[in-house]
Amino acid sequence: MANWLKNTIKNASSDCVVFGFEDFSLKILLYKRGINPCKGAWALPGGFLKKGELFEEAARRILKATTGVTDIYLEEVAVFDQLDRFPPWRVFTVGYFALVKPGKYKITATGLDSTEVRWFKFNELPELAWDHKQIVDTALHKLRSLVLHKPIGLELMPNKFTLPQLQTLYEVVLDRPLDRRNFRKKMIQMNLLKKLDERDPNNKTNAAYLYKFDKRVYNKLITKGFILE
Amino acid sequence: MANWLKNTIKNASSDCVVFGFEDFSLKILLYKRGINPCKGAWALPGGFLKKGELFEEAARRILKATTGVTDIYLEEVAVFDQLDRFPPWRVFTVGYFALVKPGKYKITATGLDSTEVRWFKFNELPELAWDHKQIVDTALHKLRSLVLHKPIGLELMPNKFTLPQLQTLYEVVLDRPLDRRNFRKKMIQMNLLKKLDERDPNNKTNAAYLYKFDKRVYNKLITKGFILE
Repeated sequence: MANWLKNTIKNASSDCVVFGFEDFSLKILLYKRGINPCKGAWALPGGFLKKGELFEEAARRILKATTGVTDIYLEEVAVFDQLDRFPPWRVFTVGYFALVKPGKYKITATGLDSTEVRWFKFNELPELAWDHKQIVDTALHKLRSLVLHKPIGLELMPNKFTLPQLQTLYEVVLDRPLDRRNFRKKMIQMNLLKKLDERDPNNKTNAAYLYKFDKRVYNKLITKGFILE
Repeated sequence: MANWLKNTIKNASSDCVVFGFEDFSLKILLYKRGINPCKGAWALPGGFLKKGELFEEAARRILKATTGVTDIYLEEVAVFDQLDRFPPWRVFTVGYFALVKPGKYKITATGLDSTEVRWFKFNELPELAWDHKQIVDTALHKLRSLVLHKPIGLELMPNKFTLPQLQTLYEVVLDRPLDRRNFRKKMIQMNLLKKLDERDPNNKTNAAYLYKFDKRVYNKLITKGFILE
């Protein structure tokens, strides 16, 4: 038995799809594998459970070990259990997803396993190891269904933002244009946003007003939900 | 090794929470174990994966074997992986949930495993084996969150029903009263229901009109979602 399999549960693993919104793009955190199997391939942070460890604990430990990212809210996506997903033997994996502001985290390739860590645009991913593309697609599907009825911007936007910036986030996640007037109306109707007495400093002429989230309303909508369109 | 463990994956299982709505109550399908471990205890239909079998395939096979229920839509709830959930060794289980009309299924205790199969009111469950109470609670939480933004009545209601009956379904699932006028207004606004030219035959005086679901709108709302209140 290979040394890296000692004290692990050999048929159970966790994998993380970490989404970030940066430079008006939806990105996913990947690392380049430093060892076999799949040495040199890009992959989702993930790996085998240790004995006595829960799936989510393993996800957090490995995320930290391969990318340096800690203190993150992980949500379960699904179990992936195709028979041939990790040849030559059978491994189930539990997929998690997370939403973060990339700037908040210092990412570093650490340890033997990872030689490089990078954010990739979700629609410009390199080829991924194993069934990780399927895990990404399932997580993306879940994220898209989520944004239609839960507020998610708080985890992804800067503290102050303009309405066009917020609309861009939704358009990028949903991968389609939204009607500007309806979006604005809907967002204002929900009382989710507080208009500030400041304008976008990056735009000198006709600059848009800045907004921030009303955390009380935000948390209420997390529970109650809404319909974006 | 016990005979019943032959050809199984000894650390992986599936369990099903089957919800039904009958006599204006939300019910859950349980079976009584005919063999050890936990002989005599009530449990969710579930068991170990066979080699070469997916979690959902195992769930369907075992559901059929213990209760006679087939052809059912199963949705993944979560993985349950507490270290001590299946002493003396460690077993992960994937929980599934389903919504059915109890009358549609002929339930039968079949095979060695189950000596009895019954529908129990969700708030009058007997003590359950292992961590099955936790699996039920998690599935119930998911169901409650689902009914607030997806239509679910089609799977649970008879073909024709009155608005008070539909409101009862929602009140039972959510375990709290809803305002009659708002419920009615919301349901009619969504164009989800077709009013029939018939009245409730079980109620002779001042009988309520019968309705049925508009399947086209229903399927659209499944994707798009709505907010119940």
